[in-house]
Amino acid sequence: MASFPLSASTPRRYAIVGTGAIGGYYGAKLQRAGVEVHFLTRSDYEVIRQEGLTVESPEGNFRLGEVRAYRDVADMPPCDVVIVALKTTQNQVLGELLPSLLNSDGVVLVLQNGLGVEDEVAQWVGGDRVLGGLCFICSNKLGPGQIRHLDYGAIALGEYRPNYKPQGVTQRMRAIAHDFERAEIPMQFHEDLLLARWKKLVWNIPFNGLSVVLDAKTDRLITDSNSRQAVESLMAEVVAGARACGREIPGVFVEEMLTTTEKMPPYLTSMKLDFEAKRPLEIEAILGTPLRRGTAAGASLPQMALLYQQLTVLDRYNRA
Amino acid sequence: MASFPLSASTPRRYAIVGTGAIGGYYGAKLQRAGVEVHFLTRSDYEVIRQEGLTVESPEGNFRLGEVRAYRDVADMPPCDVVIVALKTTQNQVLGELLPSLLNSDGVVLVLQNGLGVEDEVAQWVGGDRVLGGLCFICSNKLGPGQIRHLDYGAIALGEYRPNYKPQGVTQRMRAIAHDFERAEIPMQFHEDLLLARWKKLVWNIPFNGLSVVLDAKTDRLITDSNSRQAVESLMAEVVAGARACGREIPGVFVEEMLTTTEKMPPYLTSMKLDFEAKRPLEIEAILGTPLRRGTAAGASLPQMALLYQQLTVLDRYNRA
Repeated sequence: MASFPLSASTPRRYAIVGTGAIGGYYGAKLQRAGVEVHFLTRSDYEVIRQEGLTVESPEGNFRLGEVRAYRDVADMPPCDVVIVALKTTQNQVLGELLPSLLNSDGVVLVLQNGLGVEDEVAQWVGGDRVLGGLCFICSNKLGPGQIRHLDYGAIALGEYRPNYKPQGVTQRMRAIAHDFERAEIPMQFHEDLLLARWKKLVWNIPFNGLSVVLDAKTDRLITDSNSRQAVESLMAEVVAGARACGREIPGVFVEEMLTTTEKMPPYLTSMKLDFEAKRPLEIEAILGTPLRRGTAAGASLPQMALLYQQLTVLDRYNRA
Repeated sequence: MASFPLSASTPRRYAIVGTGAIGGYYGAKLQRAGVEVHFLTRSDYEVIRQEGLTVESPEGNFRLGEVRAYRDVADMPPCDVVIVALKTTQNQVLGELLPSLLNSDGVVLVLQNGLGVEDEVAQWVGGDRVLGGLCFICSNKLGPGQIRHLDYGAIALGEYRPNYKPQGVTQRMRAIAHDFERAEIPMQFHEDLLLARWKKLVWNIPFNGLSVVLDAKTDRLITDSNSRQAVESLMAEVVAGARACGREIPGVFVEEMLTTTEKMPPYLTSMKLDFEAKRPLEIEAILGTPLRRGTAAGASLPQMALLYQQLTVLDRYNRA
């Protein structure tokens, strides 16, 4: 870890694993700011190689004609920061990709939804070489190499360690944040990654889950009195799950999530978009792992359990 | 109550309120057996008046060319037994119908789903003039005056009293059962109507509720491992709700419900049929009232609560 390039002036080499709505957007922003970025993209390789990456954004459209795109990890150079931006439903490929892609002192930055995703990565690269990032962004992939950024974009960074022991703000968090801030990506730091992940679940579990079960956008979920009751009681279970795992989420945070959502434009959650496209849903990362870890720690989470079973059935027959 | 016609040889006059899949079927069977039956039917009056009632059934089709049909309760004679076979979602009309339709010593037999339906009727006719009947039948209305009976057909009768105080088997239960048995309708007696109603909810809450949320027939709900877990944990909550209300449902009964359902042909529940036809769902009788009464009695019923909220939202937007 000593030789991870920490100074602001030392260039760090980035790899993007999963050049989609998240990885494509952040990778393109970094490259545009002068960072060396290598993009792994299997399905979209030909198009990206020939046409580059296009980002449509209310902050200004741009196109990168030349990008370092690869379909095979064996052709990529070792990188200092490997950004994992796959859907968690594809994580079975990580064991094959990460070890060879990572510089001997490099780190993996996991930009995925849900809980336990850093644990999965750590088993391949070691528990002291992983960071987690929570993305607060609305973006879609329109087609190969074509990203539409709709709103927001901040990333909240946190250091991972086995059992999610809090690490505070480290120098390599600052170094990575420096690169992202050069690329005009707002950054925050979390001293306790597990707390940050549970806090994000306060929104993600009710809104992602109920958007699929109730075929609804966020505006209906937050304004209809019955679905709002369902949202609020699920949020209370997430808080109870976090508490059982030793993390206290203040009531004022839950209130803020509700009022923020009231002000959002009607929004299809990522799970609902996956459902409509008949892609596998991120049920395990968003709901299954929190449910199992909270329950194992002694919490009673019956509504999360019912929602988990419902989503699993709906997902299975949606893709049958 | 003394002058309710109790003897097997004294004819009892019947009224059917709601000439649909349930009321049309049982009323037609009674009339065919020689019982005097008067049918209230608003929407289907013209057709039934002209063409009578037709029953298709694996036990033999039959048609009644002449039936006593009414669109207005004011034209009907007072009856000894008024069978309420409306959907519970129409119960707001009962206060206007029942008092004038009921003979001074007559009784109301409530053939509806769910919990608390006898209480609603009792407020109009008095707490000692109500019986409940639980129908174990698959039948549909194909069109005005056209009933298709698919399977089963038994009715389990019980006496109602305020607070569902158990009444045992009464003479008027036997008198009514005599008429139904003449009409080849299998009858059972329940000494404790409230216990019978909670037992029926062990099936009705999970299967009706999940069939709508998961867009599934009974076979998928019972065989898919995730939906079966949801079924079983909802059943456990129904048992807990019943227990809080002072009624013990044995575990062997729950097991029987599961194995019986495994052997059933794939079956669309009545709530799912209502949902597909964009009719109002019987959420309050089947789920809302049990949830409120169980909770008020001290039970914790979080999965029933979530399912209740979900169904209410789905129903509202289904008919919007």
